[in-house]
Amino acid sequence: MSRRSTEATRFSLSSQRNRALSIRSSNRSSTGGTTASSHATAGAGGGGHHARKPFSFTSLRGTTQPELSKRLYRLIKSANSLVSAHETAARERVSIATQLSEWGEATGDDAVSDVSDKVGVLLSELGEQEEVYAGRLDESRGVLKVVRNTEKSVQPSRDGKRKIADEIQKVKSKEPQSTRLVTLEQELVRAEAENLVAEAQLGNVTRQKLREAYTVEFLATIERAEKQVILARHGLRLLQLLDDAPVVPGDVRPAYAHASQARQILNDAEDDLREWRLEGLVGDDVKTAAAEEAPAAALSTGTEKGKQREDLTQDAQVVDTGSVAAAADGGDGVSDRI
Amino acid sequence: MSRRSTEATRFSLSSQRNRALSIRSSNRSSTGGTTASSHATAGAGGGGHHARKPFSFTSLRGTTQPELSKRLYRLIKSANSLVSAHETAARERVSIATQLSEWGEATGDDAVSDVSDKVGVLLSELGEQEEVYAGRLDESRGVLKVVRNTEKSVQPSRDGKRKIADEIQKVKSKEPQSTRLVTLEQELVRAEAENLVAEAQLGNVTRQKLREAYTVEFLATIERAEKQVILARHGLRLLQLLDDAPVVPGDVRPAYAHASQARQILNDAEDDLREWRLEGLVGDDVKTAAAEEAPAAALSTGTEKGKQREDLTQDAQVVDTGSVAAAADGGDGVSDRI
Repeated sequence: MSRRSTEATRFSLSSQRNRALSIRSSNRSSTGGTTASSHATAGAGGGGHHARKPFSFTSLRGTTQPELSKRLYRLIKSANSLVSAHETAARERVSIATQLSEWGEATGDDAVSDVSDKVGVLLSELGEQEEVYAGRLDESRGVLKVVRNTEKSVQPSRDGKRKIADEIQKVKSKEPQSTRLVTLEQELVRAEAENLVAEAQLGNVTRQKLREAYTVEFLATIERAEKQVILARHGLRLLQLLDDAPVVPGDVRPAYAHASQARQILNDAEDDLREWRLEGLVGDDVKTAAAEEAPAAALSTGTEKGKQREDLTQDAQVVDTGSVAAAADGGDGVSDRI
Repeated sequence: MSRRSTEATRFSLSSQRNRALSIRSSNRSSTGGTTASSHATAGAGGGGHHARKPFSFTSLRGTTQPELSKRLYRLIKSANSLVSAHETAARERVSIATQLSEWGEATGDDAVSDVSDKVGVLLSELGEQEEVYAGRLDESRGVLKVVRNTEKSVQPSRDGKRKIADEIQKVKSKEPQSTRLVTLEQELVRAEAENLVAEAQLGNVTRQKLREAYTVEFLATIERAEKQVILARHGLRLLQLLDDAPVVPGDVRPAYAHASQARQILNDAEDDLREWRLEGLVGDDVKTAAAEEAPAAALSTGTEKGKQREDLTQDAQVVDTGSVAAAADGGDGVSDRI
């Protein structure tokens, strides 16, 4: 009883309307729209690049991370603990179900024996649903790993580009007439083109996979919840069959006469579970994502599509990259560097 | 993805209709109605006592346990692990929510930033609901402890009665004319009267508390489920605001224009949570049990009621006890032993 939460904590979202609109650490300064220059910058298009400030606070925020993928790496680790917790809950639930049934039998009270056994069946199925839920959370976690891996692979491209830019600055200040500058600037253009593609890939993968991962989680949450409601409501019906009016010592308790009703309740629960469908969702693509094979299919299709479009527009990219490089360099010698 | 369960395991209850009607270990022999002579025997009334077989297999089942409360003791321990698992899940969920929001901000993609932050708010509330659920499970566990404690307190009464009966048998076979027999038989009648009350109390407490404990659990399951469905459905709406059409490198992604819609979705979720009520339950007493203070109230009322009725019927008990003792002893010297 000590752990019972108060009404207030249960409705924390309601009572903190203003704060609850964001859960970011409140000790951060309000950066708002100025955060646009971290990891997705290049992916967001050339527009932002014209105002590129490589050493401002906001752009450092992305680059001072040992790895671009550090945050997501930690999140995926926490998600693993979450999956394990639900797996443990599922296992304990199933174990308790059996224990309850066997305890009920040992009481020697026919009514307690039958009701506890049937309640045990429902609890056991509650546990199965918890287990399925854990599996889905793990699936969602797998989808986020695609984003993390992409982040990881984009880091060297970003580092390479910066390294060349730094080298150019160094050479320019020490030996402004060096012939190495031409080579370095050619290298920079190539690195920037490569990075532009990498960042675009990252942006695309991030959006697709974020949406996919949490679609899987929310659908799993709905499925577990709706099925557990079915089980719990039938469980309450079962408990009603247990006459709990106190009996005076020596009095004979009326014989238990609800065995067939109890059996029927389990059959009803079973039928309701079998007939359960995901209903009332917004948009068709959510329903598509609900299909068993959708996550894997979406994965390959998305990547395929991205590749095709990259091939078709490779010429356009080179031009774009040129202008980006020009902007980064202050506009000198654009055309002859390509 | 590896942990994803198949359709078949998810509908295990459906596919095992016959087995699922009971979850007791299948290697047990089918004892059926013959289990009536374990712990609730005396509570079930004098009827069963006429056929008392103190050393039969079925009555040993209850007494070979080191303690009457061993099974429930273990179940309550497992329930503690269950509570902890849900608490861990709640904690990880809230932690992931913050991490997701902060990761989203770091991507520098306005759409990812806003959607991940708002999805984080919903996930955080999902975690809060999980925490409330854990608290309720702990409450239910507390109710079962009342049964366990009663079981514990009934054990000495049962042992005492048996000890005297054993002693009578020993004296009868060794010195059938001993005057100690009269005293021992008086003691036995007193012990049986005391035990009759104890077993009736145990029977009453067992039924009341079993029903109460699982009513609390099922209601908590429904509340968590229905609130999490609200959160998940609004979460799916949020994800729809994230345009995940792939963008070609160098192309500018359309600016994110759904900030106010996203905010509205959170407000909707909040309103829906606030307006949530427990609905469509069978019977009025379930609704009463749902009230915050009901478990504690039912607890004291039940005990009080039981005590009153015991006081009122104390005379009747003595007579009953006498006849029980007479039956147990083969009917000799009933009236002069009291």
